[in-house]
Amino acid sequence: MSDSNTASESKCGGKTTESSDSSASKCGGSKKSDSSSSSKCGGSKKEQTDEKVEATIDDFDGEPGQLVAVGLGPGRASEMTTLAKETLRDAEHIVGYTTYIELLPDDIVEGAEDIYSTPMCGEVSRTEEAIDRTLAGNDVAIVGSGDPNVYALAGLALEILESKGATASMVDFDVVAGVPAAQSCAARLGAPLVNDTVTISLSDHLTSMPTIESRLHSAAKEGFTIVIYNPWSRKRRSNYEKCCEILLEHRAPETPVGIVHGAGRDDEEVEIVELQDLPELGETDLVDMTTTLLVGNEETYVWDDRMVTPRGYEQKYEY
Amino acid sequence: MSDSNTASESKCGGKTTESSDSSASKCGGSKKSDSSSSSKCGGSKKEQTDEKVEATIDDFDGEPGQLVAVGLGPGRASEMTTLAKETLRDAEHIVGYTTYIELLPDDIVEGAEDIYSTPMCGEVSRTEEAIDRTLAGNDVAIVGSGDPNVYALAGLALEILESKGATASMVDFDVVAGVPAAQSCAARLGAPLVNDTVTISLSDHLTSMPTIESRLHSAAKEGFTIVIYNPWSRKRRSNYEKCCEILLEHRAPETPVGIVHGAGRDDEEVEIVELQDLPELGETDLVDMTTTLLVGNEETYVWDDRMVTPRGYEQKYEY
Repeated sequence: MSDSNTASESKCGGKTTESSDSSASKCGGSKKSDSSSSSKCGGSKKEQTDEKVEATIDDFDGEPGQLVAVGLGPGRASEMTTLAKETLRDAEHIVGYTTYIELLPDDIVEGAEDIYSTPMCGEVSRTEEAIDRTLAGNDVAIVGSGDPNVYALAGLALEILESKGATASMVDFDVVAGVPAAQSCAARLGAPLVNDTVTISLSDHLTSMPTIESRLHSAAKEGFTIVIYNPWSRKRRSNYEKCCEILLEHRAPETPVGIVHGAGRDDEEVEIVELQDLPELGETDLVDMTTTLLVGNEETYVWDDRMVTPRGYEQKYEY
Repeated sequence: MSDSNTASESKCGGKTTESSDSSASKCGGSKKSDSSSSSKCGGSKKEQTDEKVEATIDDFDGEPGQLVAVGLGPGRASEMTTLAKETLRDAEHIVGYTTYIELLPDDIVEGAEDIYSTPMCGEVSRTEEAIDRTLAGNDVAIVGSGDPNVYALAGLALEILESKGATASMVDFDVVAGVPAAQSCAARLGAPLVNDTVTISLSDHLTSMPTIESRLHSAAKEGFTIVIYNPWSRKRRSNYEKCCEILLEHRAPETPVGIVHGAGRDDEEVEIVELQDLPELGETDLVDMTTTLLVGNEETYVWDDRMVTPRGYEQKYEY
């Protein structure tokens, strides 16, 4: 691996010598290259009506660049794949949510011609910006934590490309997988997910609450281990309460639940509790939008501070 | 990252100069350190009655080493995390299924004091060997593809540790997450899993077929995208046929299904088909135990050769 690292670093070194004007000139003079721009944050329809949103493939001349959606994993550089790092070193522009951009290794940030970051809740405008920069001829990487396929940007990028009259092949669209929160959190707990598993997000921004509730019921009934994303936010207290209610309807109060807050971040916290303790934890700092809940099934147990969901070997083997 | 790479490489370099006798002597002279031993392959109860299996913590003197379960991701070195590589460089012994050991970068294989690999179906004896070597004082990494929590070794290692009277803390047990097949395959297809998702294994070796069928019914009814592991083997033709039947009961014949064979291997193949085509593909080389199936939900569509499951943004935003 040292070879490929050296290779991509020298490429980095090369990039840092390039003038950022060259990238700006390829941005059609868009003010958006201001990295600290917060005016882009939003998600309201109003925000969607600014001229940038209406740009289509016809508004751009010349050859589009390449667009890659890159999963960073939980956040720590050591938990990124080599492919993710090499892809970011090769990208001219890196676009992402400010918090994730701040998690990138210095050599990657310094190697990029331009970094465009916006605060939370700007994922649609941020993705449009990434696509417009690609259509303007730049090689762009759009980053997110975890994996681009887990409630993340891979789909949005393709949807917006289509809406602009572009195609995936036109920008050589690619996805670089990352370690999803379910896996990075499971690793911190021991072996909580070693059987059939469901992932469900409690955010009803894009999925209706009745659908979420119905999925929780069926997953809890069928003995899946259940990974809960986006468990709690001030605006969604009731979703969390409803979720606890449904789980307790189908599973024993003593069912082990792994709670991982801020996996890979400075404020990481890992706890194993019982399902019956979950409701009261909603109002604590332990459970927020950076928390992932791993709910055990009927066989899950806690041993020596580890959470274990047996795969079933003990029924087949003597040891 | 280059710093830490250099650091772990020099550590590697140090290791290669060590005599492998030192590791053998720490193995209690176990014949098992023959890397090409295939006599260990099995999984029958008979095989489980050999003396090695009965070794417990009392059979070992001195300080146990460290045991880490490491996920390699799909296989290619570039798709491993830096943490996985550093962990393997730090390990004295590396234990795993022959095929996965062969996927390891040369510098890692050369840096290890001893590599113990056995063919398929030896996961229980292989894990016991890893644990016995740890209890004998070696720092051991046990490797598998994907993530140690996805139908993999993290749970088995803890179960066997317990059966030997050891504890997880005694061997400083740790898990290093990897990119699971669901994610590495999704990346190759585009954005097929950008919503609530279920993973189900069709292997009824450790989970009963009625349970698997019931889970397939509920997942298909609830609009989850469904990732199918271990879809087909000569001994389990009927599981595959039954699975196709159940999915077609609940989803349209045109539902997109992504098929990824040997992700990250030389024989990698990626195809997007319709659910109705699945039954006849069971007998082709495209579908075997190295294949992962990604079954779309009601909203999933194919656009420009990419499989897309919309997250639902288009209902909320104008673009």
